[in-house]
Parts: sequence; C-alpha cells; structure tokens
Amino acid sequence: MITSTSNQQIKKIIQLAKKGKVRREEDVFLVEGLRMYQEAPQEKIVKTYVSESFWKREQKRFQDKEIEIVEDRIFQNASDTITPQGILSIVRQYHYQMEEFWKKENPFFLVLENIQDPGNMGTIFRTAEGAGVDGIFLSKDCVDIYNPKVIRSTMGSIYRMPFLYTDCVTDLVTQLQNKKVRVFAAHLKGEKNYDQENYLSGTAFLIGNEGNGLTEELAQKADCYIKIPMAGKVESLNAAVAASILMYEVSRQRRGRREI
Amino acid sequence: MITSTSNQQIKKIIQLAKKGKVRREEDVFLVEGLRMYQEAPQEKIVKTYVSESFWKREQKRFQDKEIEIVEDRIFQNASDTITPQGILSIVRQYHYQMEEFWKKENPFFLVLENIQDPGNMGTIFRTAEGAGVDGIFLSKDCVDIYNPKVIRSTMGSIYRMPFLYTDCVTDLVTQLQNKKVRVFAAHLKGEKNYDQENYLSGTAFLIGNEGNGLTEELAQKADCYIKIPMAGKVESLNAAVAASILMYEVSRQRRGRREI
Repeated sequence: MITSTSNQQIKKIIQLAKKGKVRREEDVFLVEGLRMYQEAPQEKIVKTYVSESFWKREQKRFQDKEIEIVEDRIFQNASDTITPQGILSIVRQYHYQMEEFWKKENPFFLVLENIQDPGNMGTIFRTAEGAGVDGIFLSKDCVDIYNPKVIRSTMGSIYRMPFLYTDCVTDLVTQLQNKKVRVFAAHLKGEKNYDQENYLSGTAFLIGNEGNGLTEELAQKADCYIKIPMAGKVESLNAAVAASILMYEVSRQRRGRREI
Repeated sequence: MITSTSNQQIKKIIQLAKKGKVRREEDVFLVEGLRMYQEAPQEKIVKTYVSESFWKREQKRFQDKEIEIVEDRIFQNASDTITPQGILSIVRQYHYQMEEFWKKENPFFLVLENIQDPGNMGTIFRTAEGAGVDGIFLSKDCVDIYNPKVIRSTMGSIYRMPFLYTDCVTDLVTQLQNKKVRVFAAHLKGEKNYDQENYLSGTAFLIGNEGNGLTEELAQKADCYIKIPMAGKVESLNAAVAASILMYEVSRQRRGRREI
C-alpha cells in the first residue's frame, strides 16, 4: 500500500494530471472513476490505483487484476476531483491514422478549430458519439484532449471516437473535399438555415473557438455557409450546443434517410 | 475612488458573489463584463463599479452615468473572474408572475428539475432564448440562477428569459396540462424519437438532474415520453445538450409550421 505523498508513483500521477507535456512524453493519460475504469479497453490500461476504502468495498471487482492500493488521504491528494470515487487508471494514449477515418461510405466528421474549454471539448466528443460522427479532427491549438477535465466530460467517448490533431486544418479541409466530403460552416454569412441543407452524403462541420468563432482563413474553405436561427437577442450559442444541434440534424436526416 | 479591501461596498460585492442568501436579502445579483453591463436594462442597475484602468480607457462610455471607480488591485480582488474586464454592476433581481408566461398562444416552456451545474443552467437559458422558449420553470433544488457562474453562462439571456422557481414542479405540471400544454419527458421508456412528435401546440419539456435524470414522481406526470436516439455506447447526453436538441426541434417545426 502506498502511504506517502512522496511516493514516486503518486508524484507521477499528479504530474500526469497537471502537465500535457508529461502525458505526451509518457504517452498516457489519467481516467478517474469506476465507470471510466470499466469502459476502458483492458489492453490500454497501464496501471490502476484504488483508495483503501474503495478497495475494502469493491475488492471483488479486482480478482486477478493487478492494482495498487493507496491510503485514502494520499489518494485524495492525487485525485483531480474534490470527492474522488477512489479509483483512477493510467491509460495509453490513442494514435489514430488517417485511414481509420474512412471506414464508412458518406462519412460524418467534425473539424474543431481552437476549442479552448475542456467541458465543451469533452461534451462535443460525447455528443458526437451519440450522433454517429465517424471522427473528429482538431487544430493544434485546441485544448489537450487528455486534459482530465476533457476526459471526464467525454463520459467514455474518448475510448471510442477516432480523433486526429492536424498541423493545418485548412489543408485538412482540402483533403476532405478531395474525398467528396461537403464542408459546412455555421457562419454569419449563412443564408440557409442548417436544417435546409442535405447531409446524407459525406459531411463535415467546422466548429470554431468559443469567443471568436472560426478564423476567416478556415471559414473561407467551407463549401457552404449555414446558420442556426436565433430568436431574441441571442447572437451566438455555446460552441458545444451549436455543434450538438448540427450533429443531431445530420443524425435526424440519416436515421430516416430522409430528404429535408 | 475605492482603494481598500475593507471598504464596505467591496465587502458587500464579495458577499454577493459568494452567498445566495445575501443576494436574496438584498434582492440583487452581480453581473461582470462590458457586454453584461450594456445589455442590462438601465432601470435594473443599482450601481456600477469599474477598475481604474478600465475607467481610463473607457470613461467616454459613462458620461453622466454615476459609477464608482475602484483601484485595479481592489477590483481584481472583488471580481469573480481571473482576468476581469474591469466592470461589474449590481442589478436588481427579477420577479416574474405566472401571468407573464401566458402572453402567447401555444406557449413553449421548459421545466428544470434539480439542475446543479451552473454552466448547464446558464447555457440552457441562453439556448432557450435562441430557440424561442417563452419561459422556464425551475424546481426549488436547482442551482441559484443568480450564481455568478450561471449569470456569465447566460450571456445576457438572464435579462430576457422569464423564469419562476416553483415549490412543487409536479403541481406545476398539472397547471400546465390544465392550460392544454403537452408535457414531454426524455425518458428511457420513450418509444418514439423526439423528432417524431409534434410540437406546434403548447409544449413543455421536463429536464432532469445531470447525474440522475428526472425523479420518477415528476417523470410520471408527463403526457408523453420521447427519446433522443444515441449511437455507439452513449447512455445519455449532457443535460444542456439534450435540452438544446429538443428545443431546436421545436424551433425547427415552428419555423416552418412544418408537420413532422
């Protein structure tokens, strides 16, 4: 049992929670909570730590699994949450290749540019899985997907949603277009409402930064501008909400193979 | 100019940021940032405070407006944000009456039960205004709408969206039903997808707690269970996202007066 905050493993966990650089170097990330442990692919789990009291309650779960027990006080210290459940795992990072995004005909993608809020990022992943998105491309300046707050907000979708950080999202859009994916941007210049376009063939949405929207450079690459109509004095929606409304319109059309 | 943290007004601001009880007693709330100041109804503003440097940059805005200047260091201390813009106002609370919810034929309402996350709450208000919601009812155990984090996430919708805390949401639902509002709940028992119902007549959605969903007691009161279909292994969506998808389906149907 680990009983000291100066234990090297505990120090490493705290670093992994705080520093993207350490996560990259070690090629791992942290997940917390029983659900995130249970949903993790077994072969991806490097090591699991449980608090002493969690162990006492739940040890049946871990028969013939190698886990490390940590004194409650030390676990609390290492945890990123205020009221930790008492279980955290170190999990190997994902390295998707471009080919993995092309498994399906008429694919459905998101391209995220400079999304900064961890909650938004995680929520977009979660909703994307629910809406049937095939993959997510991220600009280099997006928040680190392995940030513990992002991971928590994905509610497990991190394990299942293919994603790729791209050096240049405008080049990526060209690639998508070459493969006959139609690229849409929610934009002030949009004339048609988002539900007046057809998303049955290959579709990608460009989603921009929370405060500033898309860069003009990226927005210009879109094949089509759309708008989400807003009543009242609302000028924009939360980025995750806007993305979700668009994604579920695609899902709605594709579910019934419905024309609009 | 206020130059001391022991200034009574600064102490009051800090209390107003932290304590719902103090906000209720004084019948006011705090708003931060230029946009929130500009959108606030003038007659609702009790007092506005600006940092010294904000004043130097922006004083033209405040000709013949009574404002209090606060030394930068003290303002930073009183602000709820890490990088304050340098302007905050004390604004009078809203007291909507039930009658104000019935201005329109075929109204569109939300009923929120035990929503706890300030960001979700504010985002729901913001999206609701955009989607044309006529009013929001809240159970007593929802997060305080005047919590600074909620206010910030509303992006100004707090000034425009009628809302009412209700002692008993199940009784409220009966009231809505008596007025011919059809009450929908997203629920595991839902058979039809949310986009297979018609929302052109009076419509209300019940939105439940982030972790636990709706209480069985409230869910049972619904006229109709619906579901948001989810691909992959997603079991639920973020509460604000789920609410937004439902709201924008109503908006979509009503925009075109389209049958589904």
